Amino acid sequence: LAADLQPGDAIGFTFFTGYMAMAAASIFFLVERGQVDGKWKTSLLISALITFIAAVHYYYMRDLYLETGQSPTEFRYIDWTLTVPLMCVEFYLLIKPYGGKVSTMWKLIGYSVLMLVTGYIGESLDKENTILWGVISTLGYLGIVYEATIGDVKKVALSSNNPEVANAVRLLRNFVIVGWAIYPIGYMCMEGNLLASTGWNLDLLYNIADAVNKIGFGLVVYSSAMSSTKAAA
Amino acid sequence: LAADLQPGDAIGFTFFTGYMAMAAASIFFLVERGQVDGKWKTSLLISALITFIAAVHYYYMRDLYLETGQSPTEFRYIDWTLTVPLMCVEFYLLIKPYGGKVSTMWKLIGYSVLMLVTGYIGESLDKENTILWGVISTLGYLGIVYEATIGDVKKVALSSNNPEVANAVRLLRNFVIVGWAIYPIGYMCMEGNLLASTGWNLDLLYNIADAVNKIGFGLVVYSSAMSSTKAAA
Ligand SMILES: CC1=C(/C=C/C(C)=C/C=C/C(C)=C/C=O)C(C)(C)CCC1
Ligand SMILES: CC1=C(/C=C/C(C)=C/C=C/C(C)=C/C=O)C(C)(C)CCC1
Repeated sequence: LAADLQPGDAIGFTFFTGYMAMAAASIFFLVERGQVDGKWKTSLLISALITFIAAVHYYYMRDLYLETGQSPTEFRYIDWTLTVPLMCVEFYLLIKPYGGKVSTMWKLIGYSVLMLVTGYIGESLDKENTILWGVISTLGYLGIVYEATIGDVKKVALSSNNPEVANAVRLLRNFVIVGWAIYPIGYMCMEGNLLASTGWNLDLLYNIADAVNKIGFGLVVYSSAMSSTKAAA
Repeated sequence: LAADLQPGDAIGFTFFTGYMAMAAASIFFLVERGQVDGKWKTSLLISALITFIAAVHYYYMRDLYLETGQSPTEFRYIDWTLTVPLMCVEFYLLIKPYGGKVSTMWKLIGYSVLMLVTGYIGESLDKENTILWGVISTLGYLGIVYEATIGDVKKVALSSNNPEVANAVRLLRNFVIVGWAIYPIGYMCMEGNLLASTGWNLDLLYNIADAVNKIGFGLVVYSSAMSSTKAAA
């Protein structure tokens, strides 16, 4: 396996760094979990599970990419099917102490399912209509953006009247708007799609986005947990 | 292995997501066990063991399915032989604090053995009489349904006069009636059985049912444990 990585293969590089970063992040979140207040422990465990699940799938994806040179679409979506709903759970755990409702979590998960199922169809099963499926998928994505900026999540932030929540919600929103937006850009770089002519690579963009969103979001939760633990001490 | 997963292979997808979800759930239950009150710790460990045993067998089943395209019947029943009795233990631990008896656990295990032995014969050794074996197996299943809705388990709920037990028993009953019922539906989709014409796939249904019952039931136990731990604090 290792022998197949060619000099200058940037995509291969990111599969390796992605794999290792996810594995290291899992250990980090799991071990640091011991240091935070009880109410944050579940959140840190979820962060660790998200990066652990990603590490396992990066292991497969790296393999498939190095052996065949192809985009490991199936594993990508298997990973997202598990990790995106877990990120919705993570959002929910963050707003729950301030009155976040379980129905908000289910809304976010519902939008995610729409986004991922149609994205997979457009990327694997019906490439002829890849743009159409991308548009439908984007509706799911926009649903999540809506909840984070105007809808349920925002309402919790406003009604809580608490600067700590306002901050958490702002960060959360930024991840959804900026970090998650890298994925549709990657998707548009596929052959026959709008950004194909840029020559950018879908896997390169997805790998960068995964690192930002999975590890970055976990780190944000971690630092909220640490400062709230210190404030309570 | 990884290269054998074909685009659009929904059954293969659920073997992969099932494997990963079981592994992640085991870590979750095992780590969160540290956070719950002493009397709940054994229950959380049993939940973790159920999903751990399942993760190992999903690893084998995934392999066999991808290599041969066949239904991994043997591994399925090896898994159930271990996990179904453990689920009976889990039920028992839930009702024990409210007067549940060990004989109830043995009744449930007895019905499970009847259900699984005859189910295996009908699915693997004597496919000619698959319907007959399915009917006998269903008697075992109905025994469990009886205990959960009218028999021993229900009696505990009534005599305890405690809303928390009533709630636990109600959830338990719902899992047995709704979640477990997916299995016989899957079985009936086999060739020569009553739902064969639907074209539904047995493994797809079994994989969905396993995720619902093994992880879902564990999560229900987990959330009871967390709220009772918080109430006691
Ligand atoms: C909008 C859109 C997409 C969005 C994907 C996203 C937003 C994925 C997020 C994944 C995350 C956050 C994983 C973290 O663990 C697709 C499916 C590429 C298809 C094209 C349109
Ligand atoms: C009724 C019936 C069946 C029931 C199977 C069940 C109910 C299995 C439950 C498994 C669980 C709960 C596993 C969890 O770890 C069979 C054997 C398919 C054969 C056909 C008739």
